[in-house]
Amino acid sequence: MTKPLNVGLIGYGFMGRTHSNAYRKAPNFFDLPYEPVLKTVCGLEEDQAKAFAQKWGYESYTTNWKEVVEDEKIDVVDICVPNNVHAEIAIACAKAGKAICCEKPLALNVAQAEEMVAAVEKAGVPNLVSFNYRRVPAVTLAKQLIDEGRLGRIFHYRANFLQDWTISADVPQGGDATWRLDIKAAGSGVTGDLLAHCIDTAMWQNGPITSVSAMTETFVKERMHAETHKIEAVGIDDACTFMCRFDNGSLGNFESTRYARGHKALYTFEINGEHASIAWDLHDLHRLSYFDHRDDSIVRGWRSVHVTDGDMPYMDKWWVPGLQIGYEHTFVHQVADFLQSMAEGKPAAPTFRDALATQKVCEAVLNSAKKKSWEQVK
Amino acid sequence: MTKPLNVGLIGYGFMGRTHSNAYRKAPNFFDLPYEPVLKTVCGLEEDQAKAFAQKWGYESYTTNWKEVVEDEKIDVVDICVPNNVHAEIAIACAKAGKAICCEKPLALNVAQAEEMVAAVEKAGVPNLVSFNYRRVPAVTLAKQLIDEGRLGRIFHYRANFLQDWTISADVPQGGDATWRLDIKAAGSGVTGDLLAHCIDTAMWQNGPITSVSAMTETFVKERMHAETHKIEAVGIDDACTFMCRFDNGSLGNFESTRYARGHKALYTFEINGEHASIAWDLHDLHRLSYFDHRDDSIVRGWRSVHVTDGDMPYMDKWWVPGLQIGYEHTFVHQVADFLQSMAEGKPAAPTFRDALATQKVCEAVLNSAKKKSWEQVK
Amino acid sequence: MTKPLNVGLIGYGFMGRTHSNAYRKAPNFFDLPYEPVLKTVCGLEEDQAKAFAQKWGYESYTTNWKEVVEDEKIDVVDICVPNNVHAEIAIACAKAGKAICCEKPLALNVAQAEEMVAAVEKAGVPNLVSFNYRRVPAVTLAKQLIDEGRLGRIFHYRANFLQDWTISADVPQGGDATWRLDIKAAGSGVTGDLLAHCIDTAMWQNGPITSVSAMTETFVKERMHAETHKIEAVGIDDACTFMCRFDNGSLGNFESTRYARGHKALYTFEINGEHASIAWDLHDLHRLSYFDHRDDSIVRGWRSVHVTDGDMPYMDKWWVPGLQIGYEHTFVHQVADFLQSMAEGKPAAPTFRDALATQKVCEAVLNSAKKKSWEQVK
Amino acid sequence: MTKPLNVGLIGYGFMGRTHSNAYRKAPNFFDLPYEPVLKTVCGLEEDQAKAFAQKWGYESYTTNWKEVVEDEKIDVVDICVPNNVHAEIAIACAKAGKAICCEKPLALNVAQAEEMVAAVEKAGVPNLVSFNYRRVPAVTLAKQLIDEGRLGRIFHYRANFLQDWTISADVPQGGDATWRLDIKAAGSGVTGDLLAHCIDTAMWQNGPITSVSAMTETFVKERMHAETHKIEAVGIDDACTFMCRFDNGSLGNFESTRYARGHKALYTFEINGEHASIAWDLHDLHRLSYFDHRDDSIVRGWRSVHVTDGDMPYMDKWWVPGLQIGYEHTFVHQVADFLQSMAEGKPAAPTFRDALATQKVCEAVLNSAKKKSWEQVK
Repeated sequence: MTKPLNVGLIGYGFMGRTHSNAYRKAPNFFDLPYEPVLKTVCGLEEDQAKAFAQKWGYESYTTNWKEVVEDEKIDVVDICVPNNVHAEIAIACAKAGKAICCEKPLALNVAQAEEMVAAVEKAGVPNLVSFNYRRVPAVTLAKQLIDEGRLGRIFHYRANFLQDWTISADVPQGGDATWRLDIKAAGSGVTGDLLAHCIDTAMWQNGPITSVSAMTETFVKERMHAETHKIEAVGIDDACTFMCRFDNGSLGNFESTRYARGHKALYTFEINGEHASIAWDLHDLHRLSYFDHRDDSIVRGWRSVHVTDGDMPYMDKWWVPGLQIGYEHTFVHQVADFLQSMAEGKPAAPTFRDALATQKVCEAVLNSAKKKSWEQVK
Repeated sequence: MTKPLNVGLIGYGFMGRTHSNAYRKAPNFFDLPYEPVLKTVCGLEEDQAKAFAQKWGYESYTTNWKEVVEDEKIDVVDICVPNNVHAEIAIACAKAGKAICCEKPLALNVAQAEEMVAAVEKAGVPNLVSFNYRRVPAVTLAKQLIDEGRLGRIFHYRANFLQDWTISADVPQGGDATWRLDIKAAGSGVTGDLLAHCIDTAMWQNGPITSVSAMTETFVKERMHAETHKIEAVGIDDACTFMCRFDNGSLGNFESTRYARGHKALYTFEINGEHASIAWDLHDLHRLSYFDHRDDSIVRGWRSVHVTDGDMPYMDKWWVPGLQIGYEHTFVHQVADFLQSMAEGKPAAPTFRDALATQKVCEAVLNSAKKKSWEQVK
Repeated sequence: MTKPLNVGLIGYGFMGRTHSNAYRKAPNFFDLPYEPVLKTVCGLEEDQAKAFAQKWGYESYTTNWKEVVEDEKIDVVDICVPNNVHAEIAIACAKAGKAICCEKPLALNVAQAEEMVAAVEKAGVPNLVSFNYRRVPAVTLAKQLIDEGRLGRIFHYRANFLQDWTISADVPQGGDATWRLDIKAAGSGVTGDLLAHCIDTAMWQNGPITSVSAMTETFVKERMHAETHKIEAVGIDDACTFMCRFDNGSLGNFESTRYARGHKALYTFEINGEHASIAWDLHDLHRLSYFDHRDDSIVRGWRSVHVTDGDMPYMDKWWVPGLQIGYEHTFVHQVADFLQSMAEGKPAAPTFRDALATQKVCEAVLNSAKKKSWEQVK
Repeated sequence: MTKPLNVGLIGYGFMGRTHSNAYRKAPNFFDLPYEPVLKTVCGLEEDQAKAFAQKWGYESYTTNWKEVVEDEKIDVVDICVPNNVHAEIAIACAKAGKAICCEKPLALNVAQAEEMVAAVEKAGVPNLVSFNYRRVPAVTLAKQLIDEGRLGRIFHYRANFLQDWTISADVPQGGDATWRLDIKAAGSGVTGDLLAHCIDTAMWQNGPITSVSAMTETFVKERMHAETHKIEAVGIDDACTFMCRFDNGSLGNFESTRYARGHKALYTFEINGEHASIAWDLHDLHRLSYFDHRDDSIVRGWRSVHVTDGDMPYMDKWWVPGLQIGYEHTFVHQVADFLQSMAEGKPAAPTFRDALATQKVCEAVLNSAKKKSWEQVK
């Protein structure tokens, strides 16, 4: 009989839905050490919080996040609010001894992130940042192939995250739907929202980034605020490109933009090693491209691996070969791993400390763009 | 406040899982007229039925399907057992006034299928056959494009369903895992298991098939039975190819096999019309290929449509553009549509009668292969 | 010092160009045993023959093909005229002791083809039929992989040749540009023009076809004749699908049409073997798809082999890895192989006898479609 | 009657072959104002020069390039030697009043390039640099689409040129086959050899590059010299990444390497505009990818345009729709355009002056990498 684990969710937006779905589905597919119980959901608008609770089966709702943190029955707090509120809530949770799952990026900046790390480490609470793409089976497989040494010495790491949803100058900033365009809520533009994912995966797969040179641009200079309806200067980066060096001697090339017409959420990476290369993209997330120079030369070519067989990461839990899973499953895997780690008393990656390392790269990137110089990542 | 709808599931195998998941998820994503309640699950082995009930949250379990049918609290019976038991259970359900969701193919043969249709139509109960691929958003979109007349006169319909899991002669027949290879349980091989899907979609999109010429083959002639461990002759078709004519004058070409090395579950179709063509495959189910001859000639080409935006069929219920869903979602859509139809007192396609039409084509195909002649579909 | 080989070309249309280009280029890229000399070109219209001679460097021209055949200086006659004239010219060439390269299909029917085979075999002249796709490097590589036994037992052979250029009813039949739509000049429609290619390659790779069941259709029933401007009934098959059995026990599925919107000249084949599968298509002719089940399961997938390295068939003669060749090169390879075979006194495949085998399958296909029955290939 | 144009080729290596083939083929496919005559070929080794002359039909050969330049019968000198000899030969040609086709990159550095431009402009001779990829039909089409305004405001330009042939430390530097790895002969590594192509195309399509920030790396530090057999330090850049800004406000991201396992010559570019995007890659050079946001949303997707129809750039000269051409055809197009321009007394792009602009970007890139700073392109 598994022990119940009471979850309090803060934030009922897009991420609130992905996390709720994950808590509900995980026990049907994984043998978990705990049974997640959707205890309470918290959000700013009472009617929306209520409706969300009903839709997802939360036992209660509130508009005051402190109630969640102070609730003794809650075991895990799941933070799905805009970036500017992560730090305050997470630090309170740590003090209250809660396990924490926090949406990415960890914080608005390195200083905040360091406080958060200090808080969770001092409290000794389980902590995880929701860089969910690590748990796409094809991405996890890529990590496994690298760790097995199949690629040999790595020369190049290349990642893009391309979108096109903000090209129109009529898209507002701020508010519920477009807070990601508001510098105050988001802290940065594509760097924190999209490149943070790429950087997290890259350092997990290829080790630390040591120095960066970046360029950013804001193509649309002014947008109406969704709530005030005032035209305001846009403070975020619409696009960011950076080159970098990894500690292992390989070169990195990263780019993100919301002005790449034709790409909705095209997160791609490619890794070139001495013996083999790997490529992946989010638009066909169930496939991994793999090239192995050691193949017979006349039948050597990029392989398109359909990552659906039972011997692929996580896939023994789902359907049968050939039948793909999708985006939402990354969060289910995250819940399963987080709960398993908790039961074993081990950290679940990426921890707040892992996410701090990503935050440092993001900050170096933004500094580099501002100063037009190479920056060391400290 | 939505009214509860009590579900009794018969069969806890692969399909039992996909259907259970669908009943659980549908209310989180769709606004349903009923709230599905997982009342009871039935299966042959008590310990497995019990474990399944626990895993999926069924309130009870049984090893006697008649208990489910006779249970007055049950509103819907969901039939997920091997093909040879469909008829008996479904007819009993009809008599008991239950709504029925039945796995495909409807029956072992046309005679059985006709009895089943008669039973549900006489009883006036809601009835649906789980040809789930109709509800892949890209497939539903294809139907919509045809109905809008974008293709113009249709010349060709081509469909394949290619697998490779039975190439080894060591795969047994019969038993829980491999009943699909046992002629007694399955009724036929790839024709009923795989081509039935292709035929259902094809006739939905392109109208009735009027005549067929088919060829079948059994490559591995003997296999051990999984339960008796005796070597027995293989009675099913390992591969089946057929040509056909549609009522609208177009030509069809269908093929299915479990001996196509490299393909796990590659269901594909392509439709060629006067003005435009459409192609799709299950291994990348979230994409639809579309070619429109009316495009400017210098930028004319096959378009790869990433079917994830909110204006695509069903996709407003899920995530955001670029983030794909997978196989299991077809069953969620099916539940949502079935419940909606019930609430409106309308039939939900494909009904038993629709599935009978598919059964007739399958039977004509098998007869044609046996007689080496063209057969009319009656 | 290589010996000159005098070439007489009959037919200055599309195929006359591809063959002329091949004779001119072959010596620059291959070490040939003979130096082809473009001696004379023959065609019906004098001004066009003259212009063609000038463009391609033929020393002379004529409008009487018998002059070419009777010219003692001519070593090789290259026949690039419509199908209905192949037999008469080829038989005359054989009697005159000329080596012959004849465009495909060999003849209008099996009876003609048999006479042609008898003539060249009696005369003992080198003879080749221009089924040029055998000499796409990727296609040659496919044959090599099969011969090496990499696929193991073969279960399925699938080929399509899809076009869309005759969908409009305004396309005329007959005349220089559209003789392929005129039953008198072409003998058949897609069967002889397109499926003949597929059948030639298939039997070369997978052995004899023993029986067929076919279906044909003529979608546009009447077309204006390009020369007489009269509306006439269309006698050719616009589309042809056939199933077949190979002597080695594998199943075949072939389809060709000129009504597949979106496909210009999409010749594709796929071969499924016990251990491995191969697929190819003419629209990306420099790639071969290969799947090998013996690969490690976690990195197993279809490989896209870019057939441009020096160890690929013919490719040591061209550029460097990554730089592709195109359609016209198949004819250059054909010339190189034909001349090499001549020098060695060996037959160059496909010979007239090889092409007769293809003609027999085509005839069985057309008979089957007419009689709606399975036909043996004799 | 077309006037003969006498060609003298200097350099019988890989590029000597591509150019010779182009002069021979162009008249068969294009209506040219001049008839190219292969007059003489020059190379260092007499026996190789002689063999080359014989293979390609040059009337004579020499080992002294000055003889070619001084030969009054020569109209055009075609320079296909290593980069370090371009300047001396080209300037001599200009003084001798010859038309010049020079291989890329124009020179070892900007200073040389400026002298060369001054020389040809003073002499008023026709001059062209062989950035051949501009004349891939799909690339020319991309330029046409941009010029038609289909993309609208351009936000991003991304180009890569990825190879993998120097990963092994056993590959030597210097000598005939590997002079591209020798800093003395090549002037730089991937920057001049590969990125120069990308930069030429990019500025042609998207206007001037104004500033750059670059990173280079030499992964293999020492290689044996092919002729002296001494181990020497490697002076070239094995890999180079740079970010840039274009004059039109768009952002650029360029990368080249010879250490990208799995890529033979993968030159790719992608251009993102307000309304539409374009992508292309050299490994499938006959295709252009195009996305147009103005398409109906439910059938919107990347189009794969098979650039083989007669209304595509250059393609009316070749075969029929669906039949692809390859790498070598870019040089045929170049010859055709160069001769046409000469006849019209107009410059043929890219001129020496155009190539000087590319040289300036290359030099800024190399300077930036050395100084780790943003550099203006002057």
